[in-house]
Formats: sequence, C-alpha cells, structure tokens
Amino acid sequence: MSYFCADHLRNHTKMEDKEVNSQDQILPVDGLGWSYVDGVLHCDGMSLEDLRMSLKREYGHQSSPAHVYSLSTLFANVKKYTEALGPLGKRGVLSYSLKANNNLRVVEALRQAGVTMATTVSGNEILMAMKAGFAPTNIIYNGTGKRRWEVELAIRHRVLLNIDSEFDARLIMGVAKETGVMARCLVRLNPDLEAHTHPYMATALADSKFGVEVQQLEKVLQIVRTGEIEGEEEHVDIEGLHIHVGSAVSRTQVFADMASVAARTLHKIRERGWPRASLINLGGGLNIRLSGGHGKGEEDSDNLATPQKLVGAVLPLLPEGTTLLLEPGRSLVATAGVLMTEVLGTKTNGEVTFLVVDAAMTEVIRPALYGAHHPVTHVTVPSDQERTEVDVVGPVCESGDFLARRCQLHPRLPTGTAVVVWATGAYCSSMASSYNMRPHALEVMVRAPDLYTVVRRPGNFEDLISCYQ
Amino acid sequence: MSYFCADHLRNHTKMEDKEVNSQDQILPVDGLGWSYVDGVLHCDGMSLEDLRMSLKREYGHQSSPAHVYSLSTLFANVKKYTEALGPLGKRGVLSYSLKANNNLRVVEALRQAGVTMATTVSGNEILMAMKAGFAPTNIIYNGTGKRRWEVELAIRHRVLLNIDSEFDARLIMGVAKETGVMARCLVRLNPDLEAHTHPYMATALADSKFGVEVQQLEKVLQIVRTGEIEGEEEHVDIEGLHIHVGSAVSRTQVFADMASVAARTLHKIRERGWPRASLINLGGGLNIRLSGGHGKGEEDSDNLATPQKLVGAVLPLLPEGTTLLLEPGRSLVATAGVLMTEVLGTKTNGEVTFLVVDAAMTEVIRPALYGAHHPVTHVTVPSDQERTEVDVVGPVCESGDFLARRCQLHPRLPTGTAVVVWATGAYCSSMASSYNMRPHALEVMVRAPDLYTVVRRPGNFEDLISCYQ
Repeated sequence: MSYFCADHLRNHTKMEDKEVNSQDQILPVDGLGWSYVDGVLHCDGMSLEDLRMSLKREYGHQSSPAHVYSLSTLFANVKKYTEALGPLGKRGVLSYSLKANNNLRVVEALRQAGVTMATTVSGNEILMAMKAGFAPTNIIYNGTGKRRWEVELAIRHRVLLNIDSEFDARLIMGVAKETGVMARCLVRLNPDLEAHTHPYMATALADSKFGVEVQQLEKVLQIVRTGEIEGEEEHVDIEGLHIHVGSAVSRTQVFADMASVAARTLHKIRERGWPRASLINLGGGLNIRLSGGHGKGEEDSDNLATPQKLVGAVLPLLPEGTTLLLEPGRSLVATAGVLMTEVLGTKTNGEVTFLVVDAAMTEVIRPALYGAHHPVTHVTVPSDQERTEVDVVGPVCESGDFLARRCQLHPRLPTGTAVVVWATGAYCSSMASSYNMRPHALEVMVRAPDLYTVVRRPGNFEDLISCYQ
Repeated sequence: MSYFCADHLRNHTKMEDKEVNSQDQILPVDGLGWSYVDGVLHCDGMSLEDLRMSLKREYGHQSSPAHVYSLSTLFANVKKYTEALGPLGKRGVLSYSLKANNNLRVVEALRQAGVTMATTVSGNEILMAMKAGFAPTNIIYNGTGKRRWEVELAIRHRVLLNIDSEFDARLIMGVAKETGVMARCLVRLNPDLEAHTHPYMATALADSKFGVEVQQLEKVLQIVRTGEIEGEEEHVDIEGLHIHVGSAVSRTQVFADMASVAARTLHKIRERGWPRASLINLGGGLNIRLSGGHGKGEEDSDNLATPQKLVGAVLPLLPEGTTLLLEPGRSLVATAGVLMTEVLGTKTNGEVTFLVVDAAMTEVIRPALYGAHHPVTHVTVPSDQERTEVDVVGPVCESGDFLARRCQLHPRLPTGTAVVVWATGAYCSSMASSYNMRPHALEVMVRAPDLYTVVRRPGNFEDLISCYQ
C-alpha cells in the first residue's frame, strides 16, 4: 500500500475559511465525509481536484476513472450499526458481507471500525476475509452452490457454514466426516417473504434459489441427525439459523417479519436436538438514501429503515438468550465511495445530449443490470447556473453502457473536467469486468485532509494478458 | 500455450462405429464441430467427457467451469463470410470485432481462418489485435469515447479510426497535428435505423450515443477540412464511412437500408474533398440460429440473415469501386463455444426446480443483462427418457444469477455430472467478472479428435489479489 502524505494539499484545505455546501449543490448521499467547500467536492477534508492532480502525476492516464473511498464515512456507517446493536452487548454482532466490496483495504478498515465478523460467499472470499484479519471462527460461509474444496476449507478453519439445501447438508456432512472436524452450521431458511426490492435483489421469495423452504426444514434437520450414527462423534453442530431477504430493503417491517419466522424456527431446531442453538442471523441489506434520484425502490427518509429502527423492530421478537447477527453490505460501503471520472466530450443525437466520460459499465454495471440510479454531480461546481439534462455514458461499445440518465449538469463541460458518480462503494468494484479490455480502475482511500492511500493499483494490459501461457 | 496430444482419447473417438446425433438430442446450434456420438457430446471429434477428465487431472477443481471452443466451427463460420464476399475479390474485406471474444488464441485462429482485419474498441484491443498478428494498418479503432493515449497509439501505428462525433474529430485532428502522422479515418454515421434487436444491442437509433447524425455530417467534415490550413500538410484522410446498427440483427433488409444510406454518404464525402474515399464499413452482427430456445429476437431459419443473403442484398447498392467491409463478431464466434459446467445439486423451492451448477453470471451475464436465452443440454444423454423443466442457476449470491430458465433436463443428475451452456463463444468470456471473487474460467480449444490446447489458464486467488501493493 502506498501512502501519500500530500504536503501540497495542505494549503488547499483550510476548511474554516471556506463556504461549506453552497446552496448550488445538495449532496446526494448522507455521509459525514463528503462536502462541497467553495464549490469543490471534498472527501474527508481533501479537495477531489487536488486529489486527482496528485493521482495524475503518479499514474498518468491510468489515474481516471478512480474509485474514491471516504474512511470517515466507512467508520460512520459502521457506528450506526454498532450503536444500534449496543443494547444487546455481546449478543449483538455485526458481520460485513464482503461481496458488496471485497477490496482488501476496505475490508480491513471495516474491521478496524468495529465490524466483528465477515460474511462470505466463496472460498476465495473466505481467504480474503482471513487476509483482512478476521479470525476464521468469525467468518460465515453462505451459498447455494458450494464446492467441495470450499466446504473443506471452511470446515477445516472452523468457519460457520449456512446449510442452504438438502444436497448442501449432505455435502457438509460428508466433508465433516472425512476431515474429522465438526462443522459449525446455521440453517438458511427461505421464509417466502416479499422484500419490496428489485427482483434480482430479492432472495427470499418462494421461487428464489436460496435457502431451505419452511416445509423442507424437518427433512434437512433429519439428514443431519441421521448422519450421526449412535456412539459415533457428532459431525455437524447447528448453532442457529439464517434468513436473508435480499439487498436494498427499505421497510423495517420486513425485518420484523423475518424475526418472527426466525424465533419459531430456532425453537424447532432446539427441539430437534440442538438445544444450545442460539444464533439468529438476519441477512438483507438496508436501502441507502439518495437524494435527487429517480431510481426504483427509493423511499422517503421518514419511512427508510435505519439500523436503529431495524434493531428496535426485531428485539422484542427474539427469544431469550439469542444472539442477533446482522450482515449488511451495501449500507456499510455504498455511500463511502464515489467513482471520479473525466469528461471526454459532449454530443447530441436525436433528442438526447450525451456526456461521454471515461468510466463505463465496466466499473458501474448496476444501472444496466438493475436499472439502478446513481446520481452524478460536478467535482467543481461551474460558476454559472446553466444546467441541462444529460445522459452520462461511457466509452464501451454497447447501448447498455450508461452510468446515469437524465442528470442535471452544466451543458458545456470541457474535456478533462471531473464529475463523480455517487454511491459506488457497493457492488461496483466487486462486479467490475474488463469488457472491451478495460483494466480495473484505480482505487484510493482518503484518510485525512492531507493523506490518501492507493488501495488498489490500476490494472494494465499486462494484467489482461497474464492468463496466456 | 500447452498442447495436450491426448493419446488416451484416441480409443474413444472411432467415429465410424458410433451413432451420430441420436434422435434424443437435437443440437441447439448450427456448427460442424458439434455432434452427439453414442449419446455423448463431441467437439471436433473429441468426447467432452474425455476432455473434462483430462482437464480434471491437470487442473483439479479449477477445471470447471470451462469454455470449450471448436476450431473447426471457427473456420466454418469464417468461411461463410469469405465465400459470401468472394465475388468482390479484394474489394470484399472481413474484419473481426474483438469485443465479442478477445481471447488471444481465438483471435489468432480467426486470422488464420481468413479474417484479414480486426475491429477494436480500445487501446488495449488494438494492442491485442497486434499481438494476435494483425498488421496495424489492418486494424480499425472504433469508439464513442476515445482517450488521448488511445488515439495517439492508433495514429502512430496507422490504424484506421472511426470519427464518432465533433469532439472526436477535434481530438483526432489535434493528435494528428501533434504527432505529424496522417490520421486514416472513416466517419461513423448514425443513420437512425431500427435493428429489431434488444435495446442494449441497438446502436443506430436516433437516441443512441453512437456515431454522427446525418444532419451533423457536414459539420464534422467541415471541422476536418478547416483544420487543414492552406499550404500545410494534410492531417486527416477520410477513406470512407462506417455504419453500425447493433448486434444480433436478423433481417437482411436492415443491411440493405444501411447500404443505401452508406452509398449516399460516400458520395457526399467524395464531393467534400476526399475523392478517393471508397471504403464502406457495415457494422452490425448477424443473429445466430438457436433451436429449442425461447429468447427474444430469434427468427425462423428461412428469414434469418446469412452472410450470403447480406452480401446479396448490399452488393447492388454499392457505388462502383467501393470496398465493402463487414465486421461481424458474435456470428463468427458464438456457436464455436460452449461453457461446460458441473452439477452441484438439485433443489426445489416453491414451484421451481433449480439445477445448481458451478458456472454463474460471472461467466455468462447475457441472460441477466439482456434476457438472452442460452440453451443447456447434457454432455452425456441420460439413458432414460425422463425430463423435467429446470432453471439452471449458479452459486453467485444474487437472484439475477441464472444461466437459463425452463430447460428440459433429466430431473436427477448426480453431483459432478456435466452439462453445457450453448453459444457462449461470444460476449461471455469477454464480459466476465470476478464477482463473489470467482476467478476467470479456464478456456480450451479443441483442434482435432485427439488434440486440444489450453488457450487461457484458469484464474486463481493470486490473480485476484495481485492488485494490492
């Protein structure tokens, strides 16, 4: 990791002299780390204009686009959960879902901010969580299609496994017997709950591939039970259960519904032979608040579920002695990241004006894949008030390559001007592709007004051809 | 590149003894390379069961999923175009669009099969085309958002550039002047033609970001002209024009429409000061024929455009002395590739039975992104006739992670059984991501009944963390 203690940035960050958040710019996300100072977007007190000049000196044309993370926002997002879970003491556990953003330094930062566990969905994510400093026993491995080597890795390291189906139960049993190591498990229940989110983000509908249906639960518990032959050592310990409704959930009631189902199921698991089972793992991420957006599933702030409201709704429904585990992903990291990108040009075809930038669907696929809206704003607010509606698109040869539609931006932004795409901290870098042979974008983390670190070097042509023997 | 001259495979490939294409299996794609022999899928005469056993010995759990390419099908697909273009002699040129599949060995194979030019959409694709043996002057660089370093790379190597907009014209002019090398250009026209394909694959609608509108053409030509100061050397030579309507085009008439617009435009370009302009580059890929599918945009075979029909429709409309350049991508490579994947298990939730396999949206994103249908069939046809409707899904933690819906497959395929996803030679490997920290899949090319080569080694954890400094 390279540290840049940017002396030359110091002169530009005397916050006290400057006007913060001019009425011209409303920040699209809640987040302590972001502010407009004298019309320039700042991250944790650092001017993004200064940051990109510094990156350009270091990396040339590889410096854009760049994912920029705000360390203070990561910490603030974690704090909302740890404070909400506070009343539960050690019985309130926060686990981070790595798939939202698996950048090693982001995961490390979240651990340092107070996240105690990591939820993973593959063998490589287990390895990454360990690399980021999580104890293997504080890792959860979740997935509909686990492979043998992944299950063996998890069991040998005493990672907690979610049993997702009958065939998954058999695989876990088999590996546990073979290795002679007791498998620590939760059962993942599919409660058939409507999460009111995009179909691709919903995971608990009856027809979803995830988890064990309520009516199949007995069967799965029986598979695990009958695998234990009289007199032989136990191979699988069931420590509790997992329910996941999907990503971007806005309604607190969804979590209360999950908790009710979870409480009944925990009772059943205890009765069936695991009296010490006590962990309820409620998955499903909270939606984030974006202003100025017109995406689907956005709720106004009064109704938006917060960690506080979530825990408040769930707490009264938990059986005594239960440990509550929450595993957010997007709501911890989305607002901590923006994608900074440079204007290549403006063109009008038909009725539409296009702002062509150097970022693309390769860095942010959520608009094309889910119809998600990511607001785009200027890094430096143009001094005149002229604004026009533009579609922000990238260089990828594909009509699906758009970053945001109908944004209000200045109509004549010169080539090289920077804009930011908001809320790209989640499901952007981790879903990136190298389509059109675009290497992975640079990622930086701002740690203080005069300190940033490069947390992922930019990809290059050599990376893209290293696979050819 | 590793060559495996698979002696042990020889015993299994005495084609003459075997029943080819039993009535139980209809091949979903046209392609000489694929056949069922004694109920086992063969690629260029090699049993895929033997192939995967060989890969498993070499790569263990990294051997699945695997992209398998048929060399003979690549050659056959190229031949359809070169034969169709035959009557034009040197005035009929075939260019391959790298973005469909940029595997180095696939691109090399296409060149060896008779493709003379390469169409690229980024600086790295230009480098890749050169690496695959294309002369720089036989490379076209196309794109709405070109970057300075990419334009400079193209101009210095005498690559042919498509001018996409006014700002693109200015950039190309500027770089040409600076480097002192004449830029070889085509103008990309947006003809506002309906391609009757998925909105994400259409590129020539009035509201698409691509190309120069007809009414803006004069302006763009003027920018290039007025950039040439009296007495100074010329900086930009316009050799012709480019029109592209998108991917997966089924109707021959679309190409005839393009040719008419192209002929008029070429006339205008010649009048405006480039009398030697003679290249008409018609972009837009032909749709491929898949049987047993229910995807959008499929046409029955009588109406499906073929290279022969395309050239036949276009030829009478071309002005004398014109060179016709076609730049297919998908129709050259899609049917030459399958993704071979292993069953992890079967589960039923609600009304839906899921076949969970070890491939995912990370290898094949077209179903989630475009609603594309890729047929899935058995590698070894089960001896009994029982079939059921299943959704084929992967291990990625996302409801959008499906490979194919409503496939007719055997209801009880044991773990480790292989199935293939068809027509994955295009826009699958090149659009792959490492979401959920899934490394890039292995890719192999079958060259003869007893010879395959690994054309891309499987990715691994080290690849995924090499970006952390």
